[in-house]
Amino acid sequence: MKNLIIDQGNSSCKINLFEGDQSIYFQRVEKLTTDVLTTIKKEHPWEEAILSSVVGDDEELDQWLKGNSQRYIRLSTDTKIPIGNLYKTPQTLGKDRIAVCVGANYLEPNRNLLVIDAGTAITYDIVNSNNNYVGGNISLGIDMRFKALHNFTQKLPLVSQEEEVPLTGMNTQEAILSGVTNGLAYEIDGFINSYKAIYPELLVFLTGGNAKYFEKRIKNSTFVVQNLLSIGLNRILTFR
Amino acid sequence: MKNLIIDQGNSSCKINLFEGDQSIYFQRVEKLTTDVLTTIKKEHPWEEAILSSVVGDDEELDQWLKGNSQRYIRLSTDTKIPIGNLYKTPQTLGKDRIAVCVGANYLEPNRNLLVIDAGTAITYDIVNSNNNYVGGNISLGIDMRFKALHNFTQKLPLVSQEEEVPLTGMNTQEAILSGVTNGLAYEIDGFINSYKAIYPELLVFLTGGNAKYFEKRIKNSTFVVQNLLSIGLNRILTFR
Repeated sequence: MKNLIIDQGNSSCKINLFEGDQSIYFQRVEKLTTDVLTTIKKEHPWEEAILSSVVGDDEELDQWLKGNSQRYIRLSTDTKIPIGNLYKTPQTLGKDRIAVCVGANYLEPNRNLLVIDAGTAITYDIVNSNNNYVGGNISLGIDMRFKALHNFTQKLPLVSQEEEVPLTGMNTQEAILSGVTNGLAYEIDGFINSYKAIYPELLVFLTGGNAKYFEKRIKNSTFVVQNLLSIGLNRILTFR
Repeated sequence: MKNLIIDQGNSSCKINLFEGDQSIYFQRVEKLTTDVLTTIKKEHPWEEAILSSVVGDDEELDQWLKGNSQRYIRLSTDTKIPIGNLYKTPQTLGKDRIAVCVGANYLEPNRNLLVIDAGTAITYDIVNSNNNYVGGNISLGIDMRFKALHNFTQKLPLVSQEEEVPLTGMNTQEAILSGVTNGLAYEIDGFINSYKAIYPELLVFLTGGNAKYFEKRIKNSTFVVQNLLSIGLNRILTFR
């Protein structure tokens, strides 16, 4: 059985087709349209479909997916998920955050997990060894930091990611590159260290567009799983 | 002799009057005008004046200050300063950054110094024990982070500083509060630790609007000096 997995994030939309636990097709698009899906369907017809969106509803898309799938789920706070949820206000919990946690818990059940999703925003979420989502934190992704420094000040230039990052900037571009990149790496290690002190044998998952970029810049060991969100969505779709 | 010290930052303008090394008058204004200065001059006539601005030139203001002071300096890359400058592109170095470093070096000469200015942006600058400015880093201040998360995403609310910050958010507001505040505290400690490993007996100065807020949230010891930039400007003004 093939499952269509759609992850609508803040800056792009990722489309996966899963057969069992395996992703057999992947495409990233700027904007999700029924035309895109129609083209995919010709090559890779699916049975069931799930969509997670952080950018709001789309009634027409929902109708199309419902009509073109044996079963369709738009992930919402009412969707049944395979982990408990201790969040005080589950209706405000980002769907992408719960889905990556479901994915991590599916890969490593009954373990204390910190799931770090480094994308437009960077989220730090805890699933405990009782398979409960506990809560988490939201901070700014690296590109958002570069953009904010430029947009919200009068004189700072727009800087972008680089492979080589000095510890100390010797000009303004380097100063921003180091401040933002090293600063975010320190932030990630700081959260990992704080949670390691609380949760025994904590495993740390790193996912999202900037996962690999930060894996090598932090001191702690992490598991990088690029499609953790899609794994989580596929797990939610198959969970009865 | 009284000196007028003007620090035009990104979000407000701070006006100090120094007599020797002592600040004898302080006022913060949203917008600096000659009216504001005229009022101050009636009560506190000054001899010399210095202005540092990160927001650009103002010819009319310069003329007024020149006409109303025995000597007037608009801080620029040509201004003679009492520390060496190893920056590759001194003409692009923020004037506020060099001035806080001069202030720190005046208070603790011949020492390795890390000067952290936590305002709209947060800057990390190094002055070494040879009294040379080495370089530094620029990152986002706390309020800029809150603003960016709200402005650059479709669904996240605008959060603001709070005294009580949990380690783990149990709702979205708390998640952002913790992610941004704890994340920035980890960043500050991370830079301090990295520089301590390089510069023996490093002293850390913390200044800027959010200095006190972060002093109690970081693990390293720092000297909080709120008016470090004005101390530096006063030092530059008296340096012949």
